[in-house]
Amino acid sequence: MASAELIKKLEDTIENIPDFPIPGIQFKDISPIFLDPKLYEDVIADLAAFSKGKVDAVCGIESRGYLFGIAIAVALEVPFILIRKAGKLPPPVISESYDLEYGSAIIETREGQIKKGQRILIHDDLLATGGTTEAAAKLVEKQGAIVSQFSFLIGLKGLNGDEKLKKFGAEVYHILGY
Amino acid sequence: MASAELIKKLEDTIENIPDFPIPGIQFKDISPIFLDPKLYEDVIADLAAFSKGKVDAVCGIESRGYLFGIAIAVALEVPFILIRKAGKLPPPVISESYDLEYGSAIIETREGQIKKGQRILIHDDLLATGGTTEAAAKLVEKQGAIVSQFSFLIGLKGLNGDEKLKKFGAEVYHILGY
Repeated sequence: MASAELIKKLEDTIENIPDFPIPGIQFKDISPIFLDPKLYEDVIADLAAFSKGKVDAVCGIESRGYLFGIAIAVALEVPFILIRKAGKLPPPVISESYDLEYGSAIIETREGQIKKGQRILIHDDLLATGGTTEAAAKLVEKQGAIVSQFSFLIGLKGLNGDEKLKKFGAEVYHILGY
Repeated sequence: MASAELIKKLEDTIENIPDFPIPGIQFKDISPIFLDPKLYEDVIADLAAFSKGKVDAVCGIESRGYLFGIAIAVALEVPFILIRKAGKLPPPVISESYDLEYGSAIIETREGQIKKGQRILIHDDLLATGGTTEAAAKLVEKQGAIVSQFSFLIGLKGLNGDEKLKKFGAEVYHILGY
């Protein structure tokens, strides 16, 4: 959906850092996007267009998922729900745990913020292996809401993230694929 | 600066959680604000009015400082610079460490994003003891920029946060004080 100009501008702006955080990983540093408010607004317009009329609320995954997620929700005039790491939101919370390479992690939303039957967009800046996103989707479904869409700024190919999200039957969109 | 209506609406929306994260602490849960896009936009308009024409860039402190900070920067049409916890931004970074109750922590910005001589707004959602905010201000100053303003949604009284920031000679604003 994004214009060729937007994609080109983003590719020129995002910095590619070899061997970070560990050898062999090409880190995509999106922080330069936020230095350019006009580019940021173009990204939001594109992500909001994907979701317009299709969702009742947006869930954003801490912390970089907040940077675009909150603005998508405001553009769509729908609630924005924080998905946080364990222990940061006060009780009562709904939790979902997922496996990491070593050990596991837990994400949470505050009870009552996601409503039964709501169509939800789950947003994060980057789709890699999809582990966190999958846990977010389970967290949404266990609250009786519908995972309607996933959106990302970047989707990394070859890590099977898209594959892991297929079972939710939701639309998946990322502006850039690497 | 905020209208009595905005203050009342925020006080009614923010949830007060006793004894979280530890006994004796009254936690202010701001997450319900993001469920109401109109209220969120009123908060941004107020915070942006405080800084209009007075700053060249906004620094937001991870992660809740991103939720309002990015929108303030977009409203002011100035760059937004991420202040992150150690190890999350790729090199080269500029770091500043600060003391916690037990141990210490490090915050970072990417080298080159803060420019010499820029007037900077440092934003976070909450001013408590001011330890993180003070470290953020030192991080800005060590890069040759000027800490012109601090803004917060909430300032907690009785913890001397305001006192700790006085040495920077910057304006300090919070919509709500508890």
